[in-house]
This record gives sequence, C-alpha cells and structure tokens, in this order.
Amino acid sequence: MLLRVRAAVAQLVAGLGAGAQPPAEPRGGGDGGSPAGASFCRPAFLQLTPEELRRADDHAGRAVQSPRDGRRRLPWSTGYAEVINAGKSQHNEDQACCEVVFVERRPSLRGRLPSRESSGELDRGRKGFYFHYWALFDGHAGSGAAVMASKRLHLHICEQLRDLVDILQDPSPPPICLLHDTRAGPAEPSRVPLTEDDGEVPNDAVPRFHLEKAVSHESLVIGAIENAFKHMDDQIERERSSQRLSGGCCALAAVYLMGKFYVANAGDSRAIIIRNGEIIPMSREFTPETERQRLQFLAFLRPELLGKEFTHLEFPRRIQPKELGRKMLYRDQNMNGWAYKKIEEDDLKFPLIYGEGKKARVMATIGVTRGLGDHDLKVFSSNIHIKPFLSCFPEVRVYDLTQYEHCPDDVLVLGTDGLWDVTNDKEVAGVVMEVLTSYEPNDPCRYTMVAQELVVRSRGVLKERGWRLANDKLGSGDDISVFVIPLGGPGNYT
Amino acid sequence: MLLRVRAAVAQLVAGLGAGAQPPAEPRGGGDGGSPAGASFCRPAFLQLTPEELRRADDHAGRAVQSPRDGRRRLPWSTGYAEVINAGKSQHNEDQACCEVVFVERRPSLRGRLPSRESSGELDRGRKGFYFHYWALFDGHAGSGAAVMASKRLHLHICEQLRDLVDILQDPSPPPICLLHDTRAGPAEPSRVPLTEDDGEVPNDAVPRFHLEKAVSHESLVIGAIENAFKHMDDQIERERSSQRLSGGCCALAAVYLMGKFYVANAGDSRAIIIRNGEIIPMSREFTPETERQRLQFLAFLRPELLGKEFTHLEFPRRIQPKELGRKMLYRDQNMNGWAYKKIEEDDLKFPLIYGEGKKARVMATIGVTRGLGDHDLKVFSSNIHIKPFLSCFPEVRVYDLTQYEHCPDDVLVLGTDGLWDVTNDKEVAGVVMEVLTSYEPNDPCRYTMVAQELVVRSRGVLKERGWRLANDKLGSGDDISVFVIPLGGPGNYT
Repeated sequence: MLLRVRAAVAQLVAGLGAGAQPPAEPRGGGDGGSPAGASFCRPAFLQLTPEELRRADDHAGRAVQSPRDGRRRLPWSTGYAEVINAGKSQHNEDQACCEVVFVERRPSLRGRLPSRESSGELDRGRKGFYFHYWALFDGHAGSGAAVMASKRLHLHICEQLRDLVDILQDPSPPPICLLHDTRAGPAEPSRVPLTEDDGEVPNDAVPRFHLEKAVSHESLVIGAIENAFKHMDDQIERERSSQRLSGGCCALAAVYLMGKFYVANAGDSRAIIIRNGEIIPMSREFTPETERQRLQFLAFLRPELLGKEFTHLEFPRRIQPKELGRKMLYRDQNMNGWAYKKIEEDDLKFPLIYGEGKKARVMATIGVTRGLGDHDLKVFSSNIHIKPFLSCFPEVRVYDLTQYEHCPDDVLVLGTDGLWDVTNDKEVAGVVMEVLTSYEPNDPCRYTMVAQELVVRSRGVLKERGWRLANDKLGSGDDISVFVIPLGGPGNYT
Repeated sequence: MLLRVRAAVAQLVAGLGAGAQPPAEPRGGGDGGSPAGASFCRPAFLQLTPEELRRADDHAGRAVQSPRDGRRRLPWSTGYAEVINAGKSQHNEDQACCEVVFVERRPSLRGRLPSRESSGELDRGRKGFYFHYWALFDGHAGSGAAVMASKRLHLHICEQLRDLVDILQDPSPPPICLLHDTRAGPAEPSRVPLTEDDGEVPNDAVPRFHLEKAVSHESLVIGAIENAFKHMDDQIERERSSQRLSGGCCALAAVYLMGKFYVANAGDSRAIIIRNGEIIPMSREFTPETERQRLQFLAFLRPELLGKEFTHLEFPRRIQPKELGRKMLYRDQNMNGWAYKKIEEDDLKFPLIYGEGKKARVMATIGVTRGLGDHDLKVFSSNIHIKPFLSCFPEVRVYDLTQYEHCPDDVLVLGTDGLWDVTNDKEVAGVVMEVLTSYEPNDPCRYTMVAQELVVRSRGVLKERGWRLANDKLGSGDDISVFVIPLGGPGNYT
C-alpha cells in the first residue's frame, strides 16, 4: 500500500511573504495539522509508539529503528533503518521522509477549461502526475531545520512542478516563453510566435546571434528541484522565530519522475547506485575542502564578510606572529597547488578554511558548505555571519531507469555521513550483495534487512572501549540513517 | 640532440615592476636577443628559411609544416605539425614551443655555501635540475600575446621552480615555513621548530586546531606552474604598449619533471594520453559554457562590471521588449537546470553568456574564458572590459609516468581547437594507432608522421567547395597545431 500525499498547495509559495501559512500536513504526518515546529520527532512512516520513541532516543542502547513488519510498507518495498548517535547531541538530529506525491495541474483562475488532451487523468479526474520521493536530512546545532525540511521539502518540489504539468507530459520540447502568467491564468503553455510580424525590433542591443537554445524536460525538473530547495530555505528563514526553528541541515533527496531518478544533494550525505555489483556515484559532498575555491572567491570579492577576523588565503597551519617576514606555503582562490609567500600582518588572521577532512571548517565554525537553515549561525562570540558562505542549492544528478534492465539486486542507497564516515562505497556494495543474496528476490523485507545491516555495521557493538566495528576500529558515534531503494522495476512495486 | 635553454633569470620576476627587462632570449630563439615583440614568426624549432616561412604563411596552399628530417630533432623524438588557417586571420595565430630547461638553484646572496648534499650537480657544477617542456598557444585578435607567451612562459615556470630546487630534491615533505627569505638569502629551507619554547603565543585568535596540513612535492610544482601563468599574464600587461602586444591566447603546456607530466591548460586547446589504445583526458576546455557559473557568480557579486548593458541571468534566446511580463526560461549562477520567470525590464539587457557550443560568447565578444593577454579587450563600441571575467590560471593535471610501463605507441597529444573541432578523441586515437603501426617502433620520424596525419585529416583537402574532409564534411578552417609526445621511456630519449 502506498503513502499518498495530496499536496495541499493553497498558500505554499514563497511569494506570499512572511505571513504565509505552512502547507497543510501530509497525511500520515507525525504531528497532525499543527505547524512543523522544532520539537523532536522521528519519521512518520516509522509509526513509533511513545514507548518505542523513548527506546529510539536512548544513546546507551542505540537500538536500530526500521518500519515494522505488518505495518504499512514503504513504496517499492524501500528499506530504511536509523540509529541515534552515541551522545553527541540530545536527540537524533537526522530526519527522513518517504512519500508519493501527486502534482496537480494548477487550476485556471480565469475559468478556462484546459484543452490539452495529453494531460494525465490520474487522480479521480484531476490532471497531474505522481512522483516518488525519498529524502534524508542531517541536522546540526538543533533539530528544527531538519524536522521542518523533512515535512515540507517535497511539497515545495510539488509546488515547483505544478506549472510544468502540461509541459512535462508533452513530448515536444518545452516552450522557451509562455504566453500567459500561469500563476494568474491557465497553465497551458503556448509558444510565442517569433515570426509574428508586428514591426517591433529590440532596440536595447543589436542582436548578434539568432540562436535559440534547446532546453530539455529533464533540465526543467532539475530547475524545479533547485528552486524548491531555495524556497524551503526561505521558508525556514521566515518561520525560524515563530516556529523556534534552530540549526541547519544537510539535505539529500531522490525524486523518481517519469522513468528518471533525480538525486539532489546539498551537504555531506551521499547516494550511490549499486547495479550488477558496479558502483555508480549519484552525489558528491559539499565541504569546506571540496568548495574551497568557491568560498575563497566569495571572500576575495566580498572581504567585508570576513569581519576583519579572517583571511581568504589558506595556510597549512596557523601562523605565529613571530613568523612575520618568513615565507610560508599558501594558496588563494585561483590555485590548486601551493606556493611560498612572505608572511604579512594580514596573514596572521584566521584562515577562512581551516583543517583537514572531517575537521575542516568554514571560519572555524561549520564543516558543511551546503544545506538548509543556519540563518542565525555566527562565528563564536562575534557578529560575523556564516550564512553568506553557505549555499542552499543542491547538485542534481539524473539516472535514467529506462536505459538499463534492472534486477531486484540493483539498488539506490542514500545515507547520512554517519554511514559513510566508517563504511566506504565498496563496503556498502559488499553488504548490499551479501544480504540480498540471503533473501528470496521477491521477499519485500530484504531491502529493510540491508538497511539494518548497513546501520549495524557502521554503528558497531558496544564494548568496554565504546562502539567498535568488527575490525575493532571505532564505530560511528554519529546519527546514522539509510534508505535502500530497489531499482528492479518500479512498475512491479507501485 | 637536445635544445637546451639556460634560463637567464636576472630580472625576470614580476616583483621588479614595470621597468623589468624581459629575460634573455633562449638559445635557438627565432629573433636573437631582441624583445619578444609582436611580429609574426613561426616556432624557432621549425628553423624555417625565409622562403619556407612565406610558404607556411600561404592561406591558399595551407602546406603542413614540421621539423625537417636531417635538421635538429625535438626532444624525445616528439612529433610536431602545424598548418595556417584558411583565411580567417592574416597570419597563423597559433604558436608553439618545445624546450629542455635547466632550473638553477638560486645563488646565495649572503655568500653562504649551500650545505645540502642531496642537491643535484647536473650542469657543470651548477645545482639544479632539468624539465622538459612543450606548449601550444592559440592566439586571437592579433598574434602578440601568443608570440610572447611562446618565448617566455617556460622561463617563468623556471623562475618559479628556482626556489624549489632543494625542496623538490629532498624526499622528506616540503617545509611549511622557511626560515629565511630565499630571494634575499640562501635557498636552503629549514623547518621552523614548532616546539621552540620562547613563551610566544599567538594572541590574535585562539587556535582551535593544532593541525598541520601535509603538502606534497607535486602540489608545489602545480603551484609553481599556476603562478608562472599569472606572471606571464602580468608581463604581457606591463609590456603590451612598449612591445605592441595585441590580443590574447589560450595556453596549453606540458611539463615533464622528475617522472611526472604536469599538463596545464588555460583555454580551449586539449591534451589526451593514448595508452594501449585507451584515451585518458589530460585537460578540459574553459569556455563560456563550461565556466558559466563562475562568470555569473562574479557578475552577480560585481554587477558594475556589466556596465548596465548586460544581465548575469542566462536566457535561451534574446528577449523582445514586447515579451515583458511573460514568463521565460532562465537560469542564474546557482542553477544547472532551467525554470520560468516573469520577464522584467532588467531582463531585456543582453545576457552575459550567450550562444551555444563554438558560438557561445562572454558579453557577445569572446569564446574562451581562460588564457593570457586580452588586457585591452572591450565589448564592441563600449567601455566595458572583458578581462575581469577571464582567468589566466590553468588547470593542472598530473600524470605519473612511473606508474605504468609504457610502450613506444603510447603518446601524449596536445592540439589547438583547430584539431579538436573536427576530429574527436577517438578519431585521434585511431589515427595515432594506424600511423604508428606502419613505422618501426624505433623510427624517430614516426611521431612526426602522426602529427602530420592529424593535421592533414583535420584540414582536409581543397575542393571546389572549400576544404573538405574524407567524409566530405567541412575541414577545419582554423589554424591547427599538434604535438605528439612519446611516453615510451623518456630515459631512452634524453
């Protein structure tokens, strides 16, 4: 059985300004119709009883949570498992969402009837289409942003797609220009006749090119998801005071729409596809190290954002004042290599990017450079804002499910960094193959078993010297959340 | 026999300011000790007679030029070929350089004797090492920048490496901080003892991390090459009036040093390695399309650079004033996908990036976004400078020659866009394999034969309807220049 969401879309859009109501709660949501709030909760699809919720929140036991057998199953028999951290924060700051969302064509306000026959008639006479959606949100400095994003991001994606219902279902290339404003009028797009002979010639610049770029349907979906992340971030900003939304979160979302997966990542979660034993990366991480040049470039162009406390240059370690005048290795926004420079007074400031690997930080504060929220985040005991350096925009990668015949052992794995910090791609692929072969291909529990095993192997077991992996190395003390999504024919599952 | 260059380094560095002399001419240079100038010439290693030069400059015949048999051979028996364009500019605006450069350790100005025994004693008692160097420069809007860069870039690389002579020959990790300024004192690096107990504690910021990043020898070479490009660009800027240097150029340089190839690319030339029939890309192109987001980000942060004539948003085609208020596809600096927006007054400006493929332009002016020169380039009949949007920094890729046993058929191919516009990677690999198998593996001419064949196949033959390829498609009407560098054991060639 599916979890279906009727996107209640009345006043969702960002354009309504600060007084906008949050969209109505999806059916099956954990806290009814009340505003998202920042209170601790677990994903609605886990359907935890209060007693189960208490157990899930226990840092000592770190019991692995999954949708229970006999309760509602996730779409496509998706596997899911999570575990709380070993005590680094009061609650599990990861959040998850899995939904099937109906995108309804925006109704005509002018009362004109839609004329296209190609539009889908899928939901009791309403025109639109469905998308499947899975997402993980890894919160930091509070759970408010992650909780709200887990309840809202798919509705923002739905809202962005509403204008595209007809366009995406029409096989001809999307129109470059729409005749009418679809928010105020009918959604039906019409091409502007460029040959229209009304004698009007643009006079602001002589057109040197008479080109028209072809834009694909796929890139419209990518644009819709990108802007949905932006609107989600705007909503968190607007409502952070009234809803007491604290912190920020990384967001990793997979949207399945018309035969394609769109995997959108903003932060340091990760998605991989395992197909016939082969690993296909579906995301990359956005950290101070991977985004160093973007951040240095911004700081170079807008030095006022550094509040006279930081330098945009990178040095391999802190410089001591007595080293003034000596030569030290550095790199700037243009460089990938290193060179020596004479240390000047200004170089004694703290570097914008500092530290290596998991310890790398922007302005000594935050270790991820994309995500939602963090609007109030400042450098410790200063008035320097971090947010201008963070991007809420995801990178979206596309995987065409129709280009390859998938078997039931082919999966898309989404995991927060709690998984990947201790288990690499290859190890994850190994666990996936190992567990799946021990269950019948048509056993709907097998993907949950994989998810649980991935979480258990990354958490480890509690010994006298903390949580330990099989090889006696330290297990992940972080929150861990994993989706295992089977690719072997969605048609078989929906 | 090798072409050896003694880098005369006296006053090369940019630090000497506008009055600096250009470095002395490399031995074998085409115009003796005179300043580079902007006059037309062909690579010195071609050793063209005046009559041959005239023939090379003939747009109708488009004779392919290569180093002649019986004259000086290029290092490693490197193959080279070039041909002039079909008339798009008066002269061949491509330039090439191939040298072996000795990097001499900077002498001690304080008279202290070097103490390291690990330093090389390679050149009659002088401490230093050699690097091999091949480079292509694809000029535009005049040949001045390309000619100067072809005569000087390797000397700037040499100059940057001089401070690293001892460090690169010492197997221990490079020192983070040097005790002395090597320009003013001995080049010998010394580690700053971090445990030094002098009671001095940095008081400008509480150190939160006690990390020291490891920096590799390789990344020092990358940094040296990056800064050499910058110094080259600065020199062109300084001397463009006195030397009448016009235009700009793409630059693609391959440096072989201590067992590794460093391939540095700024522009739309391309390098690939063909190894055992497999293609390994060694560069990527920098164009308005590949660098769209960097350019849009800059324009978004510095709108004054657009001179009120351009918008940083991208649209699939020009907007007509009568379309105001309608919705049109766009994307901004954060997006990879496309979305609709309502057209406002500001959107009627010309887009910063416009056009597709080879026709894409920055501010309707230039089709490459990295390179040297172009300091005076402006938007047609305006006072809007293009240079702020262009980067002189290359991307440097490293290939470790010692990690794989190469056979005589393994080559590194460098080509200007005249080659790649009509012949793709796979076709180039096909020609390489086809030609090489028809010559003995130890025939030193075989790489020249490959280079010639690549140029001929991209130029095509002159028919009644212009230059045509074997498949009757249009051949490249651009200048075409190609290096074919054998990887099969440099030890056998040097």
